[in-house]
Amino acid sequence: MNSQGVHSSDNSTAAENQQERLIKIGWITGFVDGEGCFSINFIRQPDRANRKGYRTGVQVAHEFAVAQGARSVECLYMLMKFFGVGAVYLNRRYDNHKEHMYRYCVRRRSDLIQTIIPFFNQYPLRTSKQGDFLKFEECLRFIETDSHLTPKGLIEIVEVAENMNHCRPRTELLRILRDYTPNADVSSVKI
Amino acid sequence: MNSQGVHSSDNSTAAENQQERLIKIGWITGFVDGEGCFSINFIRQPDRANRKGYRTGVQVAHEFAVAQGARSVECLYMLMKFFGVGAVYLNRRYDNHKEHMYRYCVRRRSDLIQTIIPFFNQYPLRTSKQGDFLKFEECLRFIETDSHLTPKGLIEIVEVAENMNHCRPRTELLRILRDYTPNADVSSVKI
Repeated sequence: MNSQGVHSSDNSTAAENQQERLIKIGWITGFVDGEGCFSINFIRQPDRANRKGYRTGVQVAHEFAVAQGARSVECLYMLMKFFGVGAVYLNRRYDNHKEHMYRYCVRRRSDLIQTIIPFFNQYPLRTSKQGDFLKFEECLRFIETDSHLTPKGLIEIVEVAENMNHCRPRTELLRILRDYTPNADVSSVKI
Repeated sequence: MNSQGVHSSDNSTAAENQQERLIKIGWITGFVDGEGCFSINFIRQPDRANRKGYRTGVQVAHEFAVAQGARSVECLYMLMKFFGVGAVYLNRRYDNHKEHMYRYCVRRRSDLIQTIIPFFNQYPLRTSKQGDFLKFEECLRFIETDSHLTPKGLIEIVEVAENMNHCRPRTELLRILRDYTPNADVSSVKI
């Protein structure tokens, strides 16, 4: 093959690779529109209120997750390889389901802020899940500045996170936080 | 703007359009991997056995469908516009769900064979749903040659369609078809 042939072949390979890359990016947004979940959860940790992350007695958990049955687990490993963050976990099933479930999860704050959120800003979702993503991003922006360590900041996060993923309003948690006094026992907070 | 500028601008617009098109194609495959369904169903029509399509007393129904809640219905119209076939239907909900459901459906045989199947052959699914798609295509190939109008052909279709979409085996239907005699009463076939 002459040098021109090599050059032309390299060019067409590069074009094919670029085409495959764009289709894969599109596939990821479509698959996440269907199967992905951006969630903010609030976990009572009253016994750990003396530690930095739990001063309000409530831990804020953030997660981007995609679940699939065992037969499609390769797709989750593909997501993990593509993003370079997160991990695939097995949720065993012993009921009448025919296969175990797997979840690709990204929970680390820096991975969400530096990798996951920028990707979905560049390549937006097309379903109503885009609304959940925007709320998720807003919560992470609050958390990035440690706002969640004060009751006032935590209330703002709870208010943004309300109604994400068809959740019920967090009325009881908001009531407790608004009545918050430091060192109060929040072990009975139902959230 | 000089002609070179216009030319360059046209080129970059064309490149952007091509990029958007590939991302949209990828999105469709990812979304269908998550939310789509290729199904073959068998419907008793013993009273119509004198009509061409129902000679075995069983009608074969084929459908490609994608369902979404009302808030994401625009995605379904986007699919309809992209493929240029099928329609979006409303499934009203009056239980405790928060929104009505919509379904984008393609049922016409020629639309499936000429539009939907070639698309997913060119841009394959990545989950185990690809297995369902391949069985769906195989069934349509049988139907294309009118094999489904004879008990022998219909048995082959039922055997291929078995285990699609986690379905139960069609044991009872297969037993009836294997024992088939023309004009026998199949009104009690439980399928």
